[in-house]
Amino acid sequence: MRVDELDTPVPVIDLDRVEHNLTKMQAYCDRHGLALRPHIKTHKLPQFALRQIELGAVGITCQKISEAMVMAEAGCADILLTYPIVGAAKVAPLAELAGKTKLTVALDNAVALDTVAAAAAQAGVEIGILVEFDSGDGRCGVQTPDEVLTLARRAAGNGLTRFRGLMTYPRGPRTVPFVTETRALLDGAGIAVETVSVGGTPGCWDTHELPGVTELRVGTYIYHDRATVGAGVATLDECAVHVHATVVSRPTPDRAVLDCGSKTLSSDRVAPSVGEGYGLILDYPDAVIVRVNEEHAVVDLSKSETKPEIGDRVRILPNHVCVVTNLHDRMAITRNGEVVGDWPVPARGCTR
Amino acid sequence: MRVDELDTPVPVIDLDRVEHNLTKMQAYCDRHGLALRPHIKTHKLPQFALRQIELGAVGITCQKISEAMVMAEAGCADILLTYPIVGAAKVAPLAELAGKTKLTVALDNAVALDTVAAAAAQAGVEIGILVEFDSGDGRCGVQTPDEVLTLARRAAGNGLTRFRGLMTYPRGPRTVPFVTETRALLDGAGIAVETVSVGGTPGCWDTHELPGVTELRVGTYIYHDRATVGAGVATLDECAVHVHATVVSRPTPDRAVLDCGSKTLSSDRVAPSVGEGYGLILDYPDAVIVRVNEEHAVVDLSKSETKPEIGDRVRILPNHVCVVTNLHDRMAITRNGEVVGDWPVPARGCTR
Repeated sequence: MRVDELDTPVPVIDLDRVEHNLTKMQAYCDRHGLALRPHIKTHKLPQFALRQIELGAVGITCQKISEAMVMAEAGCADILLTYPIVGAAKVAPLAELAGKTKLTVALDNAVALDTVAAAAAQAGVEIGILVEFDSGDGRCGVQTPDEVLTLARRAAGNGLTRFRGLMTYPRGPRTVPFVTETRALLDGAGIAVETVSVGGTPGCWDTHELPGVTELRVGTYIYHDRATVGAGVATLDECAVHVHATVVSRPTPDRAVLDCGSKTLSSDRVAPSVGEGYGLILDYPDAVIVRVNEEHAVVDLSKSETKPEIGDRVRILPNHVCVVTNLHDRMAITRNGEVVGDWPVPARGCTR
Repeated sequence: MRVDELDTPVPVIDLDRVEHNLTKMQAYCDRHGLALRPHIKTHKLPQFALRQIELGAVGITCQKISEAMVMAEAGCADILLTYPIVGAAKVAPLAELAGKTKLTVALDNAVALDTVAAAAAQAGVEIGILVEFDSGDGRCGVQTPDEVLTLARRAAGNGLTRFRGLMTYPRGPRTVPFVTETRALLDGAGIAVETVSVGGTPGCWDTHELPGVTELRVGTYIYHDRATVGAGVATLDECAVHVHATVVSRPTPDRAVLDCGSKTLSSDRVAPSVGEGYGLILDYPDAVIVRVNEEHAVVDLSKSETKPEIGDRVRILPNHVCVVTNLHDRMAITRNGEVVGDWPVPARGCTR
């Protein structure tokens, strides 16, 4: 079947572009001696996680226990959870996960560390610890090297977890000073820092310029999207996922409505410097998706010289492809415009 | 199990509040002689659709063929699709649906009408037609009564569809003048207008003040959310769905991070007049969820006198509950704080 015959709206993956993106990133990391640990949150597909490992990734990154479980059961043998796991209800699932894969958890507080230690005790295996620090993003992460030292000592002291190093997201201006200062402090305490892991596709190609960083976590690079193109780290030709949609209404000369709303594209925006609206319509780049409701995308055609008719199909580059993946139970797999697969997305919806 | 023992993040439905909301809306419609046709997009649950019908709804409203199919198979015998169905790929699924339920489709153009007629021919049944008009919302809908007349004649003339009336979303200032003018025009052409259907929970309690309107389509009223409370049509005590989340990090004195990001709450906002951020934390109403990433909600506690600790649980009233429902495969069902069910959401993710 040709991709143009698929019922819409439908997210479409171009396999050749995926392979290009995976190979390019692995080559970059190999060239600079960086460990690559792809974040599977972008694709949520075991097939691609295993391909990333086959190409040379040291393991994968997941955010939540449930998505890591999908990947462990598919054969991913080394998983980093970059999320503070907190609370009694998490102990049993984390223990089950630790029984299936080599596990490391990033965290920034003692409550999370104690949760991980309880899971390690229950599983009877050691779980690795990275301490997350805030390099300027203002989300999670300890604020000072002293806090790292405290957590590293607590991790080493419980006999259940092993301190392995540092993690930050993405990689702000404080990264190198913080790492340098922390290494010195921990060296003085006789604690080794094996791994320093930074994340984020925007800025990825400069990772080798950060002294002390050993590992790169990237997710979006497999597909790219309007945000990463806008950040200058990919071209439009490297974008591997598009939403195919149909014009279902043309109420006025300057308005079109597409059959893809926030349930299909999400309501994530991009920075105003990158572009307007809820996605880039490749076929009508001067048209603007000014509004999404759940099933409707309202398009302003006033600046578009050509205007689509009812029934016409369009291809949309999503603003943020990771959230699009999460909205769809299945993805259409294509090569040269031919549909070659219809894959379920088993790690979709894994919020716990 | 008590609701506080559930693993987080988790969307939680309060059954007593659902029943209160359903009963209240049905009573309103009964009192004013309005037909109630609830939109199932908010709950996506056959159990609640059937309960709505049991309480007196004339049928249900769905947006897409696939979600209507879930409801038809569960026993909903009268369904209105308020979406223009366009294109060859839609004919077979629409025909299958028309074989399972009494079907009406709202549309605003001839391409959609011809698609519906093709499905009616394939199914061997008549499909009802409402013509959607734009009452000021600027999404779908014809702009003039003349366009209604053209479509009504085309619907009557093909021997496959039957013109039944008018539909608009939600119910702008043009509603009554448009309906009055269109009725006069169609009367002159000998075409009856049985149904005039308006939608939207905000403004719902004024529907009886719109002369000529016969039917109310509402979805959000079953759960309510921060937006409908902000619109003044419900109280906080009538809100029936909350997301329960856990504080997983407290990086600074004024910052907390919750384990519910855009994959759990969506990134939908409310009007600035209604509130800031990505949801209302009931337990800390002066705290603001200033940012969501996929799994993180970053909370500014600077205006909150009390501040939660790591491991504390919080309840969040979603900005827009319909999109929250769509993100979760299952919902926790509760009564008086006791978990009485864990229901799958079968019409979730139905974008086609």
